[in-house]
Amino acid sequence: MKTYLDCIPCFLKQTIELARITGVDDKLQKKIIDEVCKIIPEFSFEASPPQMAVKIHKIVRRLTSNKDPYKKIKQDSQKLGLDMYPYLKEQVAKADDALALAIKIAAIGNVIDFATNDFITIKKELKDITNHKFAVFDYEKFKDSLNNAKTILYLGDNAGETVFDKVLLEKISKDKRTYYAVRGFPTINDALEEDAIEAGIAHYAEIISNGSDAPGTFLNSCSKEFSDIFLNADLIISKGQGNFESLHGGNYPIFFIFMIKCPPVAKELNCKVGNLILKSGKE
Amino acid sequence: MKTYLDCIPCFLKQTIELARITGVDDKLQKKIIDEVCKIIPEFSFEASPPQMAVKIHKIVRRLTSNKDPYKKIKQDSQKLGLDMYPYLKEQVAKADDALALAIKIAAIGNVIDFATNDFITIKKELKDITNHKFAVFDYEKFKDSLNNAKTILYLGDNAGETVFDKVLLEKISKDKRTYYAVRGFPTINDALEEDAIEAGIAHYAEIISNGSDAPGTFLNSCSKEFSDIFLNADLIISKGQGNFESLHGGNYPIFFIFMIKCPPVAKELNCKVGNLILKSGKE
Repeated sequence: MKTYLDCIPCFLKQTIELARITGVDDKLQKKIIDEVCKIIPEFSFEASPPQMAVKIHKIVRRLTSNKDPYKKIKQDSQKLGLDMYPYLKEQVAKADDALALAIKIAAIGNVIDFATNDFITIKKELKDITNHKFAVFDYEKFKDSLNNAKTILYLGDNAGETVFDKVLLEKISKDKRTYYAVRGFPTINDALEEDAIEAGIAHYAEIISNGSDAPGTFLNSCSKEFSDIFLNADLIISKGQGNFESLHGGNYPIFFIFMIKCPPVAKELNCKVGNLILKSGKE
Repeated sequence: MKTYLDCIPCFLKQTIELARITGVDDKLQKKIIDEVCKIIPEFSFEASPPQMAVKIHKIVRRLTSNKDPYKKIKQDSQKLGLDMYPYLKEQVAKADDALALAIKIAAIGNVIDFATNDFITIKKELKDITNHKFAVFDYEKFKDSLNNAKTILYLGDNAGETVFDKVLLEKISKDKRTYYAVRGFPTINDALEEDAIEAGIAHYAEIISNGSDAPGTFLNSCSKEFSDIFLNADLIISKGQGNFESLHGGNYPIFFIFMIKCPPVAKELNCKVGNLILKSGKE
């Protein structure tokens, strides 16, 4: 997905949030913003938004020496996910269509980075399963792909959301070779290997690093090992908007599961902010 | 009022809106954004937000040759205000405290630039007088100042809002020398002389230009004539957030009337976005 003009104010809002989380003083926060403003004119709108996020994070790391500003938020998100796990399992156990509900839970888990500081609201939002609706739900296509797949690659997104992913992995990984990919280095609140392990993903999938520091998936910045698995998987399940923004339009056996977070993506899919998506990468 | 970090994404949102309203193509819109990003690092945060708006408007004028992008929106706003005038007059006529209600109407009129394209919502919002609340209401101080004032300077804000200002001017201008100041040149949707005339302000006040193109009031960019009146007025009534941002903190016999439009101003006043304000400039 290309970058829209409306992404630019959003880049700066994210930069301010990031600068504040690092705890640096106002003067350094301003310097971070200035550095980001300086590179915007050089940024191609043919690139996708997470590529700009990579550049922003580099600036923040360079100016603050803080390699993982979201560490505490990620830990809290993991705790939230783990706390909710028994409730999520219970919902799936009593569902008429357990797979459909597990997909929905995985999608709702993507709400976790909507307002990273307000965990009470997030928990309420996450529990409100019936209130969330899929605007795109390529369920039959997904079931077909799943039935025919021998290897599955599941692209994780945020810390905490890992637990919601586990609920879906439990339903789909039986008799399949399943991989769960996390980012190679800290980027925003995205899950790392330690988060996937803590969530218990290893019971259902082999946890692999993608070797990259992007809050999305760009094969040219990923490890060879990850790229090989990506290019040979029968089914790729891509979680989150960052993975969608970086992979949508490619010719892969992929399904995108996420919640729409912003107007440009809503426009791209002719949906609304807050809608849930299960979308086949093939039209 | 100084500029906050959070003002920067907002500057860029305003720039995008402005660029779109001029109707130029995507490539030129991007160029406008890039030019604005380039000057952000040079902008001092000790300056107030409308000073940045002046710079943004200069860039847009230079790159688009459009001297008044909001002209059509201003005309529509004026029509909206004039349509509502009989209703507003009726409300004041039957009020227990007609002056208090006229102040409230002037404040509510400031909603007019909240979403400049959606006039149905604005009209509903404007009619909903009882639903709006003052978070700061220095009414007794205002009445004292009004009783003692021989000359009043009323600083207008947006086109269309002029009609709401007239409702208040009708209640306060009797036996006073009253001036109503408009911007000297087009800036956003701010009222110009023609808008004040069309609203019928001339029945209650002498309409004067401030000689400036800022969406606020900076004496060093205003005409000598305006500055003389400003510095010698017994009572200054300042409408809108742009005038507040540029004049708050100065030692003037001033009252600010506006609706809070953004989190930084809400924080400055310890109030909420959407709150109405009648605030004495003297603590």
